[in-house]
Amino acid sequence: MSLPSYVGSMRGRDFINTNDFTQEEISEIIKAAMDLREKFRAGVPTNYLPGKTLFMLFYNRSLRTRNSFEAGMHQLGGHAHFLSPQDVYTPTLPEDMIPYQTEAISDVARVLSRYGNAIAIRIYGDAAKWFIGRGNRVILEFAKWSDVPVLNMEDDIYHPFQALADMMAIMQVAPKPRGKKFVVSYAYSGGLKPLAVPQSCVLIGTQFGMDVVLAHPPGFELEDHVIKAAKENADRYGGSFTIVNDMKEAFRDADFVYPKAWSPKRYFPPYNSKVDKDGAVEYQNKFKNWICTPELMDLTNRGKYMHCGPADRGQEVVDEVIDNSSYSLYFEQAENRLHVQKAVMSMVMG
Amino acid sequence: MSLPSYVGSMRGRDFINTNDFTQEEISEIIKAAMDLREKFRAGVPTNYLPGKTLFMLFYNRSLRTRNSFEAGMHQLGGHAHFLSPQDVYTPTLPEDMIPYQTEAISDVARVLSRYGNAIAIRIYGDAAKWFIGRGNRVILEFAKWSDVPVLNMEDDIYHPFQALADMMAIMQVAPKPRGKKFVVSYAYSGGLKPLAVPQSCVLIGTQFGMDVVLAHPPGFELEDHVIKAAKENADRYGGSFTIVNDMKEAFRDADFVYPKAWSPKRYFPPYNSKVDKDGAVEYQNKFKNWICTPELMDLTNRGKYMHCGPADRGQEVVDEVIDNSSYSLYFEQAENRLHVQKAVMSMVMG
Amino acid sequence: MSLPSYVGSMRGRDFINTNDFTQEEISEIIKAAMDLREKFRAGVPTNYLPGKTLFMLFYNRSLRTRNSFEAGMHQLGGHAHFLSPQDVYTPTLPEDMIPYQTEAISDVARVLSRYGNAIAIRIYGDAAKWFIGRGNRVILEFAKWSDVPVLNMEDDIYHPFQALADMMAIMQVAPKPRGKKFVVSYAYSGGLKPLAVPQSCVLIGTQFGMDVVLAHPPGFELEDHVIKAAKENADRYGGSFTIVNDMKEAFRDADFVYPKAWSPKRYFPPYNSKVDKDGAVEYQNKFKNWICTPELMDLTNRGKYMHCGPADRGQEVVDEVIDNSSYSLYFEQAENRLHVQKAVMSMVMG
Repeated sequence: MSLPSYVGSMRGRDFINTNDFTQEEISEIIKAAMDLREKFRAGVPTNYLPGKTLFMLFYNRSLRTRNSFEAGMHQLGGHAHFLSPQDVYTPTLPEDMIPYQTEAISDVARVLSRYGNAIAIRIYGDAAKWFIGRGNRVILEFAKWSDVPVLNMEDDIYHPFQALADMMAIMQVAPKPRGKKFVVSYAYSGGLKPLAVPQSCVLIGTQFGMDVVLAHPPGFELEDHVIKAAKENADRYGGSFTIVNDMKEAFRDADFVYPKAWSPKRYFPPYNSKVDKDGAVEYQNKFKNWICTPELMDLTNRGKYMHCGPADRGQEVVDEVIDNSSYSLYFEQAENRLHVQKAVMSMVMG
Repeated sequence: MSLPSYVGSMRGRDFINTNDFTQEEISEIIKAAMDLREKFRAGVPTNYLPGKTLFMLFYNRSLRTRNSFEAGMHQLGGHAHFLSPQDVYTPTLPEDMIPYQTEAISDVARVLSRYGNAIAIRIYGDAAKWFIGRGNRVILEFAKWSDVPVLNMEDDIYHPFQALADMMAIMQVAPKPRGKKFVVSYAYSGGLKPLAVPQSCVLIGTQFGMDVVLAHPPGFELEDHVIKAAKENADRYGGSFTIVNDMKEAFRDADFVYPKAWSPKRYFPPYNSKVDKDGAVEYQNKFKNWICTPELMDLTNRGKYMHCGPADRGQEVVDEVIDNSSYSLYFEQAENRLHVQKAVMSMVMG
Repeated sequence: MSLPSYVGSMRGRDFINTNDFTQEEISEIIKAAMDLREKFRAGVPTNYLPGKTLFMLFYNRSLRTRNSFEAGMHQLGGHAHFLSPQDVYTPTLPEDMIPYQTEAISDVARVLSRYGNAIAIRIYGDAAKWFIGRGNRVILEFAKWSDVPVLNMEDDIYHPFQALADMMAIMQVAPKPRGKKFVVSYAYSGGLKPLAVPQSCVLIGTQFGMDVVLAHPPGFELEDHVIKAAKENADRYGGSFTIVNDMKEAFRDADFVYPKAWSPKRYFPPYNSKVDKDGAVEYQNKFKNWICTPELMDLTNRGKYMHCGPADRGQEVVDEVIDNSSYSLYFEQAENRLHVQKAVMSMVMG
C-alpha cells in the first residue's frame, strides 16, 4: 500500500487549538479528511498507523469523541486505549496533587511517551474544577512534558477537532466559505456547558474568511483573548467578526447557524472569586427564548443548522429543525469527526 | 486469504431473536461457527473483518459475553469498543430521558452507524427498570435508527447468542437434534434473573424439532407470546412443546436438561402495577428444592447438563453435576459463545 | 516476517515469580526485551502474536502496567482486554464468594482459557483485603484452573515484571551485574504499599549475583520465605545478601539504590490477628527521615537511583534526585516494562 503524502506531514506536532495552525495547514487537514472519508465509504484499507498507540484520557464522558477516536485508530491500523481517571492514578497539575491518588502530569506524560505514539485528553467543567482555563492548562502541561503529540479532545477553552469537523461540513455545502455568513449563537440549555465550542467556532470561521456573527445575551461574552484572535483572523483572512445581542437579527440571511449553549463566564474563576453554579444557572434560565425554531431558520438564506452534539432537544433546538435533513448538518458534523481526527492522527503520528 | 462463503451472507441484518431467522439460517450460522472453531483451534487466521468496528454497550456486567465478543472481533481482524453507560451520555428511550445525562437512542444509533459496523447491546433487570420488555424495546429502538446491524447481547426477553451456543453444544452431542428430549427447567437462585435464557431456549429447541419440556413451579410461566411462538415452532418443525410443574417428572428420560433460575414475572410490570422485588424473592424462596443433583441426572437418558453461566453453585446446581465432564456441557456452551458470535458477525458485518 | 527464536520458547508457562525461573531463563527474557526495544525504536514491525488475546484483570488501578501491557500486545499484533472487577462478576476465591456478585475463579479461568491466550492479574492491598498472600493466592488459583499462561501484574508478594524491568535497567548500566552493590531500601510514604516490589527486587538482585543490601527500619522486615530464597540465590549465584537498619550505611559505595516505601507487615494478617491500617500508618510515620536526597546519593559509588513508580515525591525522594538524569533510572525502568512484558508474552504465548 502506498502512503498518501499527508501521512507524517506534520510529524510530532500537538493539536490543541486550530489557531496554532495556518489556514493552509487546516485546509490540508480537511483535504486529507475528505480523502479518508471517501476511502472509508468505499471500503479501501487505510492502514497508515500500524502498531501505533493512542492514549485517550477522558476526565469527562463522551460518545462521539471516544468512539470516533477509537474506531479511527483501528481503521488506521493502530489502537487506542480508553483511560478513565479512576483507572489510573489521576494525572494532575502540581497544585492539585493528592498523595496516593494522583500522579504528576509530568511523570505520566513522560512514561506514556515511551509506550506509544500520542496522548489525547478531554477535560473541562467539574473535572477542571470550573476554573476556566485549568483544563487547557492540564493539556499544555501534558504537551510540555510529552515527547509525542498531544491532542485536545475538548478542554474548557477550545474544541479544535469539532471545529475541523464543522469547517469540513461547511465546505461540503460551500466549498469556498469566504464571505459566507456564519452565525455562532447562544441557545438555551439548563445544563452548564464549557465555552470551548463557540470559541473554536469563531476562530475557525474567521480563519476561513467567513463573515462570522457571534450572537448572545449580555453576560455570555467569550473570553477576550479569543475575541481578539478572531478579529485578527478576520483582518488577515478578509472576513469579518461582529457581535450582536439578538438571535433573530443574527439569523437574518445567514448561510450557517450554530445555536449552542455555553455558560456565563462571570460566575466562574478567574472571572469570579468562586465557582457559582447556582448563580450561573439562575442567570441563564432568563434566556429560554434563545431556542432554534423553524421560524428562525426561515429568516436565513436557506441556511444550514449546525450543532456539535449532543444537542439538548427542546431547549437549544426543536426536533423539527435538528431532524430536518434539508436544514441540518448535525449528523454530517458528527460523521466528520471520525475523518478529521484520522487526518490529524495520520499527519502527526505517521 | 480466500473468504468462506458465509462471510457477508446475511449482510446488514440485525440479530435480536433467533426466531426472526429460519431453521435453515440458524443451521448455516452453526455450520459457520463450527468452521470458525476448527480454525481457531488449528491456529488458522480468520481475518474476515479487517478494520471493522463493533460497538458494545453494556448496561449490565458480563464475563462471557464481553470477552467472547471482544476477543472474537480481534480474531476476525476487527475491533470492539467496550462502552459502559456511565462513560457515554446514557442512550435512553424517549420517556426516560434525563437532561444532560442521557442522549436519545435515535441520536446515538445514527452517530455510531457512521463510525463503525455494528452495535451490540446488553440490557435487562435494573438497567431496564425491571419493566419486562423495556430492555428489548431499547434494542428495537437502536435497530430502528441504526444503519448498521444491531446485535442483542441479552435483553429481558431474549438471549439469542446463548441459544445459538446451546444448540451448537446440543449438536456436538446429537448432530440431529430432532426428537431428542430437551428439558428447560426452573432451578432455584436467591438472585433475580431475567426470562431471556429460558425463553430463547424453548424457541430454539422447538425450532429444531426437539421434544421440548418446560418445567417450573406455578408462577414461573414464560411470556404468552413466547409460549405461542414455541408451539408454532413445534408444529412447523415436527417436535413438541409441553409444560409441566414437576422437575423430577421432566427429567425422566431427558437427553438434555437446562436447569436455570428466572424470576416470577407477576411481580414485575407490565404483569404487575409496580416492581416488587421483595415479593418476587419471597415467592421464589419457596422453591429451594428445585436444584439439579446427581440423583436427578440419574433419571435422564444419560442426559447432558446445560447452563448459560454463571451458575449459582449450591442453589441451581451442585458441584458434582456441573463439574462432572461426563454430564456437563457447561464449558462447551461458554466456548461456543465465541464461535457463534464470530459466525454471526462474519455474516452480517462482512 | 521471520520469527525470532524466542517466540514461543517458553510456550504455556506462567509468569508469577522471577524465582520460578533460572538465571539463564531470566537472561534470555532480558535479551529478548533488548531486541524488542531496539525494534520498537527503529519502527521495525514485531507482529509475533497476531490474533492473540490477553485478558488483563485489574483489581487495582494502574498507569504503567495497564498501558505497557495493552500497547505491548498491540505492538505484537495481538489485543489486550482491560477488565475491571466491577464490569464482570468479580472472580473470587471460594471463601470470599458473594452470591450474584462474584464468580468462582475456577469458572472464570476455565472460560477465559477458551476465548484467548493468556490471563494477567493485578491484586494487592484493599483488593486482597490486606491479608498478605491472599492476592498471590488469587493468582495461583487462576494458574491452577487456567489452560493458558497466567501473568502476575503485581500481587501482595511479588511484582515480577517490575523486577525484570529493573534488572534490564541495571544491565544497561552494568552489563555484568555480578558483584555490584544493589541497595533495596525502605523510604517513607504516608500511603500503605505492598511488599511486592522490594521482595521481587532482592530476589532478582541475588539471582544475578549482586551484593544485595536490604535496608529498613525495624518492623519493615520482608517475609521469611523471601529472605530465605534471597540467601539461597546469593549462595547459588555467588553474590551476597545483607540486612541493615541504616539507610546512610547502606548507601555507602552503592552502585544502585532503590529507596521505596512498603508497609510494616506485623499490622496485617497473617502476621496480625486483624487488619490494623491505623497502627501501620502511625508506625511508619516515625520514619519520615528515610528519604532519598542528593546528600545520600553522594555517599554512593556514583550510584543510580531506581524506583518502580509512581514515586511519592517529597516523601520517598526529592525532585532533585528523581529528575536528575545523571542519577535516575526512573523513566528507563518504566520504559523497560513495555519491552520485558513483550518479551515474556512472545515467549509464553507465541
